[in-house]
Amino acid sequence: MYFDVNDTICAPATIPGTGAVSIVRISGPDSIRIADSLIRCKNTSLSALEAYKMQFAEMLEADGSMLDQVLVAVFRAPHSYTGEDSVEIYCHASAYIVNRCIQLLCDAGARAAEPGEFTRRAFANGKMDLAQAEAVADVIASQSASAHRVAMNQLRGGYSLELREMRKDLLELASLMELELDFSEEDVVFADRKKLRASCDALVDHIGRLIDSFKLGNALKDGIPTVIAGATNAGKSTLLNALLGEDRAIVSDIAGTTRDSIEASFNVDGVLFRVIDTAGLRESNDSIEKIGIERSLSMIEKADIVLAVFDYFGSLDTLSDSAALIRKKCGDHQPLIIPILNKIDLLEGDNKKVSPFNTNVIDFESYLLDALGIPESSFLRISATSGEGIPDLKKILSDFAHSSLNQNSTLVTNARHLQALKLANAALLRVRSALYSRTPADLYLQDLREALFHIGSITGEITTDEILGNIFARFCIGK
Amino acid sequence: MYFDVNDTICAPATIPGTGAVSIVRISGPDSIRIADSLIRCKNTSLSALEAYKMQFAEMLEADGSMLDQVLVAVFRAPHSYTGEDSVEIYCHASAYIVNRCIQLLCDAGARAAEPGEFTRRAFANGKMDLAQAEAVADVIASQSASAHRVAMNQLRGGYSLELREMRKDLLELASLMELELDFSEEDVVFADRKKLRASCDALVDHIGRLIDSFKLGNALKDGIPTVIAGATNAGKSTLLNALLGEDRAIVSDIAGTTRDSIEASFNVDGVLFRVIDTAGLRESNDSIEKIGIERSLSMIEKADIVLAVFDYFGSLDTLSDSAALIRKKCGDHQPLIIPILNKIDLLEGDNKKVSPFNTNVIDFESYLLDALGIPESSFLRISATSGEGIPDLKKILSDFAHSSLNQNSTLVTNARHLQALKLANAALLRVRSALYSRTPADLYLQDLREALFHIGSITGEITTDEILGNIFARFCIGK
Repeated sequence: MYFDVNDTICAPATIPGTGAVSIVRISGPDSIRIADSLIRCKNTSLSALEAYKMQFAEMLEADGSMLDQVLVAVFRAPHSYTGEDSVEIYCHASAYIVNRCIQLLCDAGARAAEPGEFTRRAFANGKMDLAQAEAVADVIASQSASAHRVAMNQLRGGYSLELREMRKDLLELASLMELELDFSEEDVVFADRKKLRASCDALVDHIGRLIDSFKLGNALKDGIPTVIAGATNAGKSTLLNALLGEDRAIVSDIAGTTRDSIEASFNVDGVLFRVIDTAGLRESNDSIEKIGIERSLSMIEKADIVLAVFDYFGSLDTLSDSAALIRKKCGDHQPLIIPILNKIDLLEGDNKKVSPFNTNVIDFESYLLDALGIPESSFLRISATSGEGIPDLKKILSDFAHSSLNQNSTLVTNARHLQALKLANAALLRVRSALYSRTPADLYLQDLREALFHIGSITGEITTDEILGNIFARFCIGK
Repeated sequence: MYFDVNDTICAPATIPGTGAVSIVRISGPDSIRIADSLIRCKNTSLSALEAYKMQFAEMLEADGSMLDQVLVAVFRAPHSYTGEDSVEIYCHASAYIVNRCIQLLCDAGARAAEPGEFTRRAFANGKMDLAQAEAVADVIASQSASAHRVAMNQLRGGYSLELREMRKDLLELASLMELELDFSEEDVVFADRKKLRASCDALVDHIGRLIDSFKLGNALKDGIPTVIAGATNAGKSTLLNALLGEDRAIVSDIAGTTRDSIEASFNVDGVLFRVIDTAGLRESNDSIEKIGIERSLSMIEKADIVLAVFDYFGSLDTLSDSAALIRKKCGDHQPLIIPILNKIDLLEGDNKKVSPFNTNVIDFESYLLDALGIPESSFLRISATSGEGIPDLKKILSDFAHSSLNQNSTLVTNARHLQALKLANAALLRVRSALYSRTPADLYLQDLREALFHIGSITGEITTDEILGNIFARFCIGK
């Protein structure tokens, strides 16, 4: 990777080939001169062009023939995305034209940009901090209203502001301690330790809240992990189809790693759920089927929501066995378990069946809920086939997501930020324990500086080339 | 398809999802008002915005929260792509944002555009003629410099101008004939029939030239059909790789319809060649292999260029058999046959082999060239493995394409145009034969009007809703 910031870079900002328009962007000190050498505007030159004003022009080939009729706009430093002089060319969305355009610009002295290099320059020129730069990629990748809202909040700087406030508090804490340190030989304790402790406690709380928000933040970004579990023939796949079919939002089928598991996403009230239809749970001697069942169970371990599906007409043994298996796998991580009785359409009509629930309803329901470990809960009755009860199920899912959302104003969605927060938190916990044990300031001031470093690394107030390289390599070219 | 031209339409003009920027365009009488209701500009409104000037703004959700930070530009009728009032929104390239943006615009009174509807409006408002509108799609689809040049010439109107000139000549011819008709009862022949004939001959010639140009025009657009033929083990696939590998231009591998045929494209000096590597030619009793060989042979029938590849060390029988098969299939359609002797690298080194060509070079070469039906030609010696001779082969291919190109100033690339030209030509041939037989004008004037109609239909001076529907349905949405 080559990151000279003094040269002029160019890249397509859109995918050429289909669509109507493609954009080629150029940024750097020579961008206007380089573009001017290839673009013929009627009665004017690019360098004389008013900033932000789109101008009809001809993009020329090396031999002076016309490559394309384009619109062109110049942006002058610092009033551009990158903070540098920039030019944008709006051409026909032809792969040939865009490739040729990049070639011509490179022949004229520009360089093809690395992924994320435009945004990296925007960061370097103070147009945005690192957390905002990362939010650009998240905004583009957002698949749902809630993921979009979180990313947009980060892009607008709300999150950065919160981190800057936190850093200010940390700095104040540090300066008070430095004061104590300066006078420590005189055996005078200047700083009010009680105040320092309170301030440190508040910071630990705050960082803890941000760390806790990651699970939800990540779930909103990638979809809340939801597993459909139950015995074979409980109607799990039909339920998956019912959930996907009604809301024709983003549906992507990824071939599962196990024979019987399918992953797809659906959107309820602006929240994305990543749902996995697992292999049916049952005792099996078939070694391959056993592997499938083990995988289903391990998915339950990672889920935030488990849709525990039971066949209203299943046998008592099957139902209670699968309930026990689900409970065992939910274990300590306590996902939201939604107990569901499926196939209620078969209670009516010509082929009316008899259900164990019919014969002794209350006892059997309680028995199963006990087996699931949620005695206070109650079953949702649905028919995945007819769609009855599906809206109620979606309401439960939506309420769960939105109640979590409301509890969390700021959500951490970025694994790098989580790592920095955890390191800051560990350092700050050491500071706190020292404060409570009346350890002299010089012994924990280094920990405090470490916490400051990690918080500062999130927004990029403190950074290294390695961090920057990792962040911007994940961007697409042209951003 | 719904084509009200009085409402306001919107569509993405780029593919959202990756890339950095997406464009949403809105066009129609209410476009500025509708966009204004959703976009908040600092200190101004869209309706007050100077045309062509990009303005930083916030795109708002229905509840007033921010959907995205965008750039926005207004274009006022008639100075826009469509000739109507238009607005373009430059937002982050997120599928979520773009979809939401289209939804919000539709809620505010716009309608999602049909494919090609923006360009259709541009045509309806006289911003371009039909041939130019069709060229927009061709420009976007162009894969090579030559295809691009042809499409760009058509977009710029060079082709339309030529057709309009032709139509003017036809109209003049018609008016002279009308004159003759008016006075025919007085038995006066006003129009100089000799002049009429000359004029008609010139038109027939011109249309004939355009019709003939279609084959080349189409080949330039989609790639010149080139077949690699020869006996099994002649090194055909290695030659394909050598042709593709050196020039890392557009390479698309399409799984062939036959076991052994692979189709790919490569670019030499800005001309696209669509090359097919066929199954080896040999006598076979295997019924499946026979089908493969039959298909190879039928591809030779459609090729413009046949690379006839021979193993320098093949047996006499094999070589002459495959030569005879190739000649038979080239038949009357006379493609360019390039005779190639492959594997010359094996003439040197430790594993030096003996070739039948070595033993009696001249005679055997002449014998094979005779068998191919090109006795005046000579063999190109190559090694597909080492790459020796490949540049010479490319030179031959390039020279062939460019000599064809230079003979043809205007190239017809559109099947609709070809059809119209053929119909015009047929009508005009009837006129000419009438002129030479001294048939009275009233008997062939209808034919002349028919020729005028067909020529006019190409640029859209004469058109029907059905023609328009067919043309614009092939466009992508947003164009």
